[in-house]
Amino acid sequence: MTDSIRTLALACRDAAATVAALDAARKAAVLVAMAEAIEHDADAILSANALDMAAARQKALSSAMLDRLALDPARVRAMADALRHVAGLPDPVGSVTRRETRPNGLTIERVRVPLGVVAMIYEARPNVTADAAGLCLKAGNGVILRGGSEALHSNRAIAAALGRALEISGISPHAITLVEDTRREVMVELLQLTDIVDLAIPRGGEGLIRFVAEHARVPVIKHYKGVCHLFVDKDADLALALALLVDGKTTRPAVCNALETLLVHRACAGQFLPAAVQALRARGVELRLCERGIAIAGDHTLATDDDYAAEFLDLVLAVKVVDGIDQAIHHIRRFGSDHTEVIATRDAQRADHFVRSLRSAVVMVNASSRFSDGGELGLGAEIGISTTRLHAYGPMGAESLTIERFVVRGNGQVRHAPT
Amino acid sequence: MTDSIRTLALACRDAAATVAALDAARKAAVLVAMAEAIEHDADAILSANALDMAAARQKALSSAMLDRLALDPARVRAMADALRHVAGLPDPVGSVTRRETRPNGLTIERVRVPLGVVAMIYEARPNVTADAAGLCLKAGNGVILRGGSEALHSNRAIAAALGRALEISGISPHAITLVEDTRREVMVELLQLTDIVDLAIPRGGEGLIRFVAEHARVPVIKHYKGVCHLFVDKDADLALALALLVDGKTTRPAVCNALETLLVHRACAGQFLPAAVQALRARGVELRLCERGIAIAGDHTLATDDDYAAEFLDLVLAVKVVDGIDQAIHHIRRFGSDHTEVIATRDAQRADHFVRSLRSAVVMVNASSRFSDGGELGLGAEIGISTTRLHAYGPMGAESLTIERFVVRGNGQVRHAPT
Repeated sequence: MTDSIRTLALACRDAAATVAALDAARKAAVLVAMAEAIEHDADAILSANALDMAAARQKALSSAMLDRLALDPARVRAMADALRHVAGLPDPVGSVTRRETRPNGLTIERVRVPLGVVAMIYEARPNVTADAAGLCLKAGNGVILRGGSEALHSNRAIAAALGRALEISGISPHAITLVEDTRREVMVELLQLTDIVDLAIPRGGEGLIRFVAEHARVPVIKHYKGVCHLFVDKDADLALALALLVDGKTTRPAVCNALETLLVHRACAGQFLPAAVQALRARGVELRLCERGIAIAGDHTLATDDDYAAEFLDLVLAVKVVDGIDQAIHHIRRFGSDHTEVIATRDAQRADHFVRSLRSAVVMVNASSRFSDGGELGLGAEIGISTTRLHAYGPMGAESLTIERFVVRGNGQVRHAPT
Repeated sequence: MTDSIRTLALACRDAAATVAALDAARKAAVLVAMAEAIEHDADAILSANALDMAAARQKALSSAMLDRLALDPARVRAMADALRHVAGLPDPVGSVTRRETRPNGLTIERVRVPLGVVAMIYEARPNVTADAAGLCLKAGNGVILRGGSEALHSNRAIAAALGRALEISGISPHAITLVEDTRREVMVELLQLTDIVDLAIPRGGEGLIRFVAEHARVPVIKHYKGVCHLFVDKDADLALALALLVDGKTTRPAVCNALETLLVHRACAGQFLPAAVQALRARGVELRLCERGIAIAGDHTLATDDDYAAEFLDLVLAVKVVDGIDQAIHHIRRFGSDHTEVIATRDAQRADHFVRSLRSAVVMVNASSRFSDGGELGLGAEIGISTTRLHAYGPMGAESLTIERFVVRGNGQVRHAPT
């Protein structure tokens, strides 16, 4: 007989209250202990992962899924290193973001406090277990981890190490709670514990995120697909633009900040496209072009609207020649996913117009979309990239796992004079 | 035949894109035009309100509801004044909250942008129509207003004035969209337009908020009940504590920042309670006390757990004598609503312990709970008080109707050196 998900969540909430009260030094020490426990248990974690891998191969999972699931000594070390890195980041909790004294003498402070309990819903990526646990602890939260069933042995072994580190540190291991019952109905129950769970963060494929959004009653911050665009403006430095294109499309095509669509101003398409096609083909990229693009670059597959809406996550790129910056903006508004867009231009005014006209979480001027990442943007680490236009938008670090509240100090101020 | 709610919402979203692009001066001018239109249409608004009031009296609505519904020339002027006040507030949109240059030369800015489309769900309070429209416009958002059916004539007249002000200013009137079909199924449809509505804010009674939370698929920030506590610590200045108590309980008992429960340290209960009871009784307050309180203050109704959980919104106060600050904290954690709590104490360390141990949105030291209000806390105005621990917590002003995104500028940086 296993505990109900509600019982598990209540225990996590109680433990979260303790974690919320820990000071910065104490949390850093706990994170280091977590890193050490992961390293100490490396063999156990790898053995558990071997069980998951064997089952996954038998189920004939895709090679991409197998790659995400697989652990090796280097990846286990990377998990520990990530925890040590988070230990060294500034503590967001307790920081005073604003301070004001009102005319009546009241001092108003905005102070960061933890969210409470975060439910992390993810697929078969065991490293998320350690990463999410570390960032949630850093921000003073309890975390309920519900990973994919394919990684259950791995997650159990990792969570056991983390839990031991908490216990050694005198903290209830329930602060990091792994849901071992991976049935969907249990996940749904978790997503409806509105009196316990303060936030659910789904990370994974479109299907998972839709399922969470559909069934959750607790607040959800979605980490949705990245249909990222590069627009090469008429006066762009074409060598620079080509470097952004190659970096964005080919260095890691399976991640959400990879480029999926290239938009080229017609004024420079004749010069840029042939060079771009050559560079991409040399790196094995398959192209889907508009008619004008084909007229310039030669025989290629004709792009459909589905191609322009697609997150290929692969060495495939959609290309469109546009009449100008506003057509590029219109295209991105229609087909984009609010994740990351890039403009290559030498004109600061046109860059500003591009930035202001788009509502995407990250807009880059003359920089690769691949920098759309919490670490690269200075957050230290990330728990994901929000495409929800609320609370956090774009890469989310530890600070995004806290909330500002009001602390008011006075000396007897009342709103109405006594009668 | 009326437009479907989806058609209305799409038109609002299109108009919102225009509002998002307005600069600060332009928005201020539009807000002044809105104020003038309200004043110009005062007679029409009052006539429409008279229709609502007549119907409401026939339906025998409570006097509290009638009071919230009623408009008079002063209240219409107050709506216009509120819009002029919002016109003068700083524009949150476009403000750069952080700026950083990374070692690789990228400059990272966090810039405030509008949320998009806000759906405001409220009851029969016509002033919310103007207030919410003004704050949403200030923050560059479109707003969909769904008020209670009892106020439909009033809301129509107010929205007509606001819409005319938009048109005069060359802005699509759809930026402020009133839902005239007040059937619940239409509200449910609105709350499920996840591709159009970025945020729903329900304001009203517990029933409405629960209904919205239950049916919404779009993000919701709840503005839930305020079970606000005053804890009188053992070393409190008792005259100061009494002033906070009288202000918090009696000056406007029907609002959410009024006090509902008094907690008194046993060390000062013998001295404080008799004076408190006398002062409150003189102002018509009915008391519900614990057994120890009754032993000190004489014959009163015995408080039940339901009393301690209640938002009376009336001249009723629950009272409990506690053994110390930790029992007070425990009581607030158990019965509180995360809204506003107050401690009266002369000991700064005990004040800090109280602040840190509670997770409420607003915690006050030696100040009245009645200051838990956007205007009083320096936000200029408020669209409500969030008790949702995400995005905004406590009073929400125009800034809370925006979100920070990332703007990155470089000179050709790529993440991986070209091969």
